[in-house]
Amino acid sequence: MFTVTTTQVTLVQIDNYGPWTTTPEPRREMDLQTLQSRLFADVAQFLGHRDAYVFFTRFDNMIAVTNGVDGAAHASLQESIGNRYPVSVSLGTAVAERPVDALEAANRRLQTAGSAQDESRTEVLAGEYLSETDRSDLQVAHFDVVNATGKYTDRLNEFDTFINIEQAYGSLMRHLREAHGALAFFVGGDNVVAVCPDLPESAFSSAVAHVEDDVDIELQVGVGRGASAHEAGFAAKHALEDCRHDGTSVELFGAPAVSD
Amino acid sequence: MFTVTTTQVTLVQIDNYGPWTTTPEPRREMDLQTLQSRLFADVAQFLGHRDAYVFFTRFDNMIAVTNGVDGAAHASLQESIGNRYPVSVSLGTAVAERPVDALEAANRRLQTAGSAQDESRTEVLAGEYLSETDRSDLQVAHFDVVNATGKYTDRLNEFDTFINIEQAYGSLMRHLREAHGALAFFVGGDNVVAVCPDLPESAFSSAVAHVEDDVDIELQVGVGRGASAHEAGFAAKHALEDCRHDGTSVELFGAPAVSD
Amino acid sequence: MFTVTTTQVTLVQIDNYGPWTTTPEPRREMDLQTLQSRLFADVAQFLGHRDAYVFFTRFDNMIAVTNGVDGAAHASLQESIGNRYPVSVSLGTAVAERPVDALEAANRRLQTAGSAQDESRTEVLAGEYLSETDRSDLQVAHFDVVNATGKYTDRLNEFDTFINIEQAYGSLMRHLREAHGALAFFVGGDNVVAVCPDLPESAFSSAVAHVEDDVDIELQVGVGRGASAHEAGFAAKHALEDCRHDGTSVELFGAPAVSD
Amino acid sequence: MFTVTTTQVTLVQIDNYGPWTTTPEPRREMDLQTLQSRLFADVAQFLGHRDAYVFFTRFDNMIAVTNGVDGAAHASLQESIGNRYPVSVSLGTAVAERPVDALEAANRRLQTAGSAQDESRTEVLAGEYLSETDRSDLQVAHFDVVNATGKYTDRLNEFDTFINIEQAYGSLMRHLREAHGALAFFVGGDNVVAVCPDLPESAFSSAVAHVEDDVDIELQVGVGRGASAHEAGFAAKHALEDCRHDGTSVELFGAPAVSD
Repeated sequence: MFTVTTTQVTLVQIDNYGPWTTTPEPRREMDLQTLQSRLFADVAQFLGHRDAYVFFTRFDNMIAVTNGVDGAAHASLQESIGNRYPVSVSLGTAVAERPVDALEAANRRLQTAGSAQDESRTEVLAGEYLSETDRSDLQVAHFDVVNATGKYTDRLNEFDTFINIEQAYGSLMRHLREAHGALAFFVGGDNVVAVCPDLPESAFSSAVAHVEDDVDIELQVGVGRGASAHEAGFAAKHALEDCRHDGTSVELFGAPAVSD
Repeated sequence: MFTVTTTQVTLVQIDNYGPWTTTPEPRREMDLQTLQSRLFADVAQFLGHRDAYVFFTRFDNMIAVTNGVDGAAHASLQESIGNRYPVSVSLGTAVAERPVDALEAANRRLQTAGSAQDESRTEVLAGEYLSETDRSDLQVAHFDVVNATGKYTDRLNEFDTFINIEQAYGSLMRHLREAHGALAFFVGGDNVVAVCPDLPESAFSSAVAHVEDDVDIELQVGVGRGASAHEAGFAAKHALEDCRHDGTSVELFGAPAVSD
Repeated sequence: MFTVTTTQVTLVQIDNYGPWTTTPEPRREMDLQTLQSRLFADVAQFLGHRDAYVFFTRFDNMIAVTNGVDGAAHASLQESIGNRYPVSVSLGTAVAERPVDALEAANRRLQTAGSAQDESRTEVLAGEYLSETDRSDLQVAHFDVVNATGKYTDRLNEFDTFINIEQAYGSLMRHLREAHGALAFFVGGDNVVAVCPDLPESAFSSAVAHVEDDVDIELQVGVGRGASAHEAGFAAKHALEDCRHDGTSVELFGAPAVSD
Repeated sequence: MFTVTTTQVTLVQIDNYGPWTTTPEPRREMDLQTLQSRLFADVAQFLGHRDAYVFFTRFDNMIAVTNGVDGAAHASLQESIGNRYPVSVSLGTAVAERPVDALEAANRRLQTAGSAQDESRTEVLAGEYLSETDRSDLQVAHFDVVNATGKYTDRLNEFDTFINIEQAYGSLMRHLREAHGALAFFVGGDNVVAVCPDLPESAFSSAVAHVEDDVDIELQVGVGRGASAHEAGFAAKHALEDCRHDGTSVELFGAPAVSD
């Protein structure tokens, strides 16, 4: 029923960032926060308009899903950041069936070029990119917490709400990583977006059940497929709307969840 | 030895954001990411230049430490966002000795005005603000992971590094919340900034030990005090530099850690 | 009838910008445009929240009207830009009755420190600032073109519309500079904001008549006074609304124009 | 010697912007300036990464040179702005040999759809786009003022410098428009970028001579050609570097200027 998925992953790493933040003395925290979040926003706009996704992760290291974005576009992004920020970035890209394997290979390209805090290792651009002919689908799942506003946001203080969301996210991210090599990212509110290999519906019901068992938080998830992160993610968002509307906990490709 | 600390906390909540993101149909994820991170950056600049701190938390709900920022400035921030974004924000502010109590009271001001997803509850501005005369210090702790680059970033793939950092953060945030009513926020890289009530050095060594026991990750922490989040946080950054330089795991107010 | 006005003017000059834009080879024009306009936006937010105004002028040199913004705030702006941009800025500030005299003195502080293209002259911060006690009002005039949309935007192509607006602006800026030492800035659309010394209504009717004679374009103008650029400018905007509503060509302080 | 050039021009017009800026009452000027300049920056990044150029012009109406950018990309830009700003934009696009004719046709597409201040005329997307097969070169000229820093910036106050630059720009823009249907834009500092039809070197020496006669300011100009605005503009920047190095006043396509 499922064809093979292929994920192209790019690691965006700010060069020698840690030392920069404290040289010659520590920089104001709000300036660092502004720099980091605006850099992320710029990468999100650049890649988003090419139907790719990027996640802020640790901000100094961002993980992007870049199916359909070629080497020339990566070079252009790197140059543009170098022209407009006081820091530069290195970009490593690789392709694999499982997202974590793609990331592992992408990451190794930077690691073999030198340490993230090696001041002479700057603006590495290393990667392999999917060609037009070998492109296949990727799978994206969009999770959120059932009735988060009613159960948490409108009742608890924001930090305790956040603790709940954070625990659900932590439980989910580790489960998907270990069980499937999928990469799940918190994207704000009560939303988690996961980039997955080929997974059947049962994998998602299991993930939802795992989080409920583990930390007693109820999730729902929409799953989509497409030629790009945007296309797959957009289908996932629509599927999640179906969950919200129908009260189901898993919706695949817009079809109601059935046991498999 | 410690005088009383007082923390003024502001909850910044985007009005009716969840429904907006899916009306009339789901909006592109990278546009939402861009909007959220730029809004956070703008709030960080606004408050940062007033020596306050803001943390992105869930992006649709951000927690700020606003000692020294009065009601007029809060009104000005709210108006400016309303003028420049497609969404508006509500701001609730309160003051307490323990940060979590301040947040709780700040949050309640918004919750009693209506649900976060009530479309008629917009631009609430409610709060009490520290007067010039009753201002006292606040305490900020800046944690990071010992040798994160060598142990994680340069060795593991970024997602597995992130899992480690996220687990350390999750363990630390829950411990500080439960034990002390402190609010700890991941700020990127391997850094966590915690806004604390009056805590002695032993509380920080215990926190570091707790995380090491719990998830086997070694932290170090600098602690500072000051009249504003920036002043306290800047002292904490300098204290953390001392940890890095001297190999100690806790530095208070720039003095070397001694057992207590 | 008029009390003395005092204007505090700050020159914001990007350090050694020209050479930077072509080193080691010319940088992409759209990256430069992005950098310049975002830097301007950041300065506008910083100063705007302190009730000051800044104008983009040539982008590498921006002119700000900073009544009420002290030296510490100027230092904070300079530091924040240095932390977040690949370029730094120098700031010269001075005070005078006529805006152009304040600018002249502010500018000289940077010029005596070195050339704008001297790579060793960076982050100059030099100025005198109005004290709390000697603050007095300043005067701001907000001009626009009568029925610009109907006469130009909806009829001509945008470049020919722009030629008309640009000619009106050029005529007006030179007249106000020569006749009164006022500084007039195009702020987009068909709007010009002028920072003036004490000027009577007749000066504004003359300016409007001058432009009509010179380039055959009909202007209207609202004039306001206040303790800050924002306060004066906001009164001017309201006065201009009166022009639009009543069909008058000059409105002072909200009162209908009478001959003087 | 010259082949035909073709320019694709897009008019970016903020919908119903004038009324929005004063409804329900005038908005703070610095918020408007921030909104306008950030919107311009976003369009510059979006189009710049597609090798197109955009000029801020009047900010509420921006003119872009979009050879190589198709209708889908225009739709994507429009959607993204609608998702992230409190205002929306209409886009009209057309193609012609002379830039002003392309703009005229692009503009008419919006004008026939309704007034710029018609609140029901929003997000118009109308245009014709160059196909892959009929793409040909375009010509871009990059002017600046000879020794602007030494003659003006370091000597005069910034406003008087600006008056000089503005006069040179005004003289040049009108000459190029009237004589050749070229569109010239001030891009900051002492720089003007002109999008031209096929023009021989003599046209540029005449333009330089015209400005010197008219307002006594000495310009130099580099001219480039290419398949996109960036490619042509980049060649023009390199040619201008040759002017600076060799003391010539016109450099075409990197070759020294000879009389023709």
